[in-house]
Amino acid sequence: MSAHSADEQFLHRALELARQGIGLASPNPYVGAVIADSHGNVVGTGTYTYAGVKHAEVLALEVAGAKARGGTLYINLEPHAHHGRTPPCTDALIAAGIHRVVASMPDPNPKVSGRGFDKLRAAGVHVEVGRLEEQARRLNEGFARYIRHSTPLVTLKAAMTLDGKIAPPPDEALDRSDGPPAGSGFSGNWITNEVARAHVQELRHQNDALMVGAGTILSDNPLLTDRSGRPRRRPLLRVILDSRLRLPLESRLVQSAAKERTNDVLVFYSSAGEQKGDEEKKAQLEQLGIRVEKISAVEPDGRPDLPAILRRLSQLEITTLMIEGGATVNWTALATNVVDKVFLYYAPKILAGTGSIPFAAGAGFHHMSQAAQVKHVHLHRFGEDFAVEGYLRDPYGE
Amino acid sequence: MSAHSADEQFLHRALELARQGIGLASPNPYVGAVIADSHGNVVGTGTYTYAGVKHAEVLALEVAGAKARGGTLYINLEPHAHHGRTPPCTDALIAAGIHRVVASMPDPNPKVSGRGFDKLRAAGVHVEVGRLEEQARRLNEGFARYIRHSTPLVTLKAAMTLDGKIAPPPDEALDRSDGPPAGSGFSGNWITNEVARAHVQELRHQNDALMVGAGTILSDNPLLTDRSGRPRRRPLLRVILDSRLRLPLESRLVQSAAKERTNDVLVFYSSAGEQKGDEEKKAQLEQLGIRVEKISAVEPDGRPDLPAILRRLSQLEITTLMIEGGATVNWTALATNVVDKVFLYYAPKILAGTGSIPFAAGAGFHHMSQAAQVKHVHLHRFGEDFAVEGYLRDPYGE
Repeated sequence: MSAHSADEQFLHRALELARQGIGLASPNPYVGAVIADSHGNVVGTGTYTYAGVKHAEVLALEVAGAKARGGTLYINLEPHAHHGRTPPCTDALIAAGIHRVVASMPDPNPKVSGRGFDKLRAAGVHVEVGRLEEQARRLNEGFARYIRHSTPLVTLKAAMTLDGKIAPPPDEALDRSDGPPAGSGFSGNWITNEVARAHVQELRHQNDALMVGAGTILSDNPLLTDRSGRPRRRPLLRVILDSRLRLPLESRLVQSAAKERTNDVLVFYSSAGEQKGDEEKKAQLEQLGIRVEKISAVEPDGRPDLPAILRRLSQLEITTLMIEGGATVNWTALATNVVDKVFLYYAPKILAGTGSIPFAAGAGFHHMSQAAQVKHVHLHRFGEDFAVEGYLRDPYGE
Repeated sequence: MSAHSADEQFLHRALELARQGIGLASPNPYVGAVIADSHGNVVGTGTYTYAGVKHAEVLALEVAGAKARGGTLYINLEPHAHHGRTPPCTDALIAAGIHRVVASMPDPNPKVSGRGFDKLRAAGVHVEVGRLEEQARRLNEGFARYIRHSTPLVTLKAAMTLDGKIAPPPDEALDRSDGPPAGSGFSGNWITNEVARAHVQELRHQNDALMVGAGTILSDNPLLTDRSGRPRRRPLLRVILDSRLRLPLESRLVQSAAKERTNDVLVFYSSAGEQKGDEEKKAQLEQLGIRVEKISAVEPDGRPDLPAILRRLSQLEITTLMIEGGATVNWTALATNVVDKVFLYYAPKILAGTGSIPFAAGAGFHHMSQAAQVKHVHLHRFGEDFAVEGYLRDPYGE
């Protein structure tokens, strides 16, 4: 095996270890480390988790012990040279006699980026940067957006037909208070298949928070939980945009919050929608363990100030937010330019019709040249369904 | 090389030869033939074209001459045992001493299917059927639909944004009589990229006829020609649904028809839309070399009777029709259940908005369970664009 492919193999392993931190590392980045001795034997590995405090490379050093001397560290992200919750990792690596560091990318935090590599090089450690960089960058794109702009990375997710419909025409004859309407997700009349829906749970697992509008709760009565079956340090924060506090106390969401008491539902209502019963409804929700916060509305259309909400979520150390909104929330997100990436699932169906619910309603863009441009498109297949993953903005950009 | 893979290689070659008949074989099927001698050397090949009259296997026999004796015929479709424009191919194969026939599939025409194989077997020829059948069936799906049901195979083609919009909101301020509107295909403000649009020309080349509504001529002023650059025996028939004979005499379509005089534009107008100036407009169009036919309209909505139009096109030996309609024609096609397959191109853009033009307008399907189901989905990539190819109906089905 060439040195090149051996390096890549160890880096792949480091990336795999880093991925084991999904759900456990936020608001810090995913980091995995592998230490190989001079014979190419793995002598230590580590995965960073927030609760574990210690960084991946320090964990790997602890496993390797004296065998680290003269060895190579493989790591997806630049080691820290600064004091944070832990002492600088660079010092530990130098002290352990690490001979060479192969890292996929520098720290995306501009305040520290490159300092770790500089310190290692100054101590005579050979440093190579940039292998498997694309994979490494994608893995920590949420952290990058959060640390560079103090805002979560926003993914707009939707499931639709081939003609961009997220639901058939609303059935006015149905009494929605009695339960889920026909055509709602909750009723089992899903648009996409089981494989695609299982993948949505993976996406939820990768995100710190979900956001929907109150309309989605009223029409679909979803639970909005992470059902990936894998552990997460903090519960998935369920964020509801509810200008007029219409969230039903009997909804599955409210009932689950009341039962679990994990403080994982946050309702934003709007000053513009303020009305007489608000204080009472707010008190009722809070009594059930739900956080309720007022947010200013944007004039003249009264839609919620999404950038302000993102700033608030950033204060709560939410690094990644997935919007699973209805047509109105989707348009608001696009119109306010808060969307970083999209994950659009398609079922091979055509609903047609002017009455069916489009992916994004509202005013829309008026010329093709103004349309939101999705870049770096990746297609995923889920049986006969598929999904489009792509970026409206570079998470590492300015 | 195993006998199995050698057989497949020769059949692949036969399929490639058959594909050379695209644009040239209709209304008959695409057939390619390879004759290999007992040592596995190719001694003859042939491609069927309508103008060439002779069938592919007969052309291959003519090339092979005496070397055909004891050899194997590889062919994508069952040889004919009946008298048509040519004598039975089976007789020629038997007379030439062909030892073995490897064919991908039986003749899709139920009146003759299997007879060729029977006749060959009765004469002691070894016959193997079914290898590369899937590819062979796809290649002749148009012929299959046409010969089994006396109706063209209908492909619904559209280019849209990720949210199913084929155009931005109409710009009412624009005077459409002055030229193409902003956002129209004709103006150069295309939805999809050059690679995808080049592929559309391939689809046009594969079809005997195109169909659009008069609205598309009025808004986009398209030429609707086969610009694949490859030869075709018959010009691509350009079919216009124009209930009220609104087709402008100065449109590029009409002007090109008047200039070329290839009898390749067919306008269907409707008895329901009949009005005072119709006879005059009809005469004007006919004087410019355009065929104009009256078709009954379906009550109560007055939309054109597409099944009747398909029967008429079938009489004209149109085996394949591609609909490149606007939102109204697309819905009419779906609602009347004439669509066999779809080819939907997507640009990685999101237009959003309630005013933009959806892929299919009209009443639409009212429940997800009633949505048109696309099966056997195949995804094509064209740079950052992609396309969904799939079937609403099995072209070989009842």
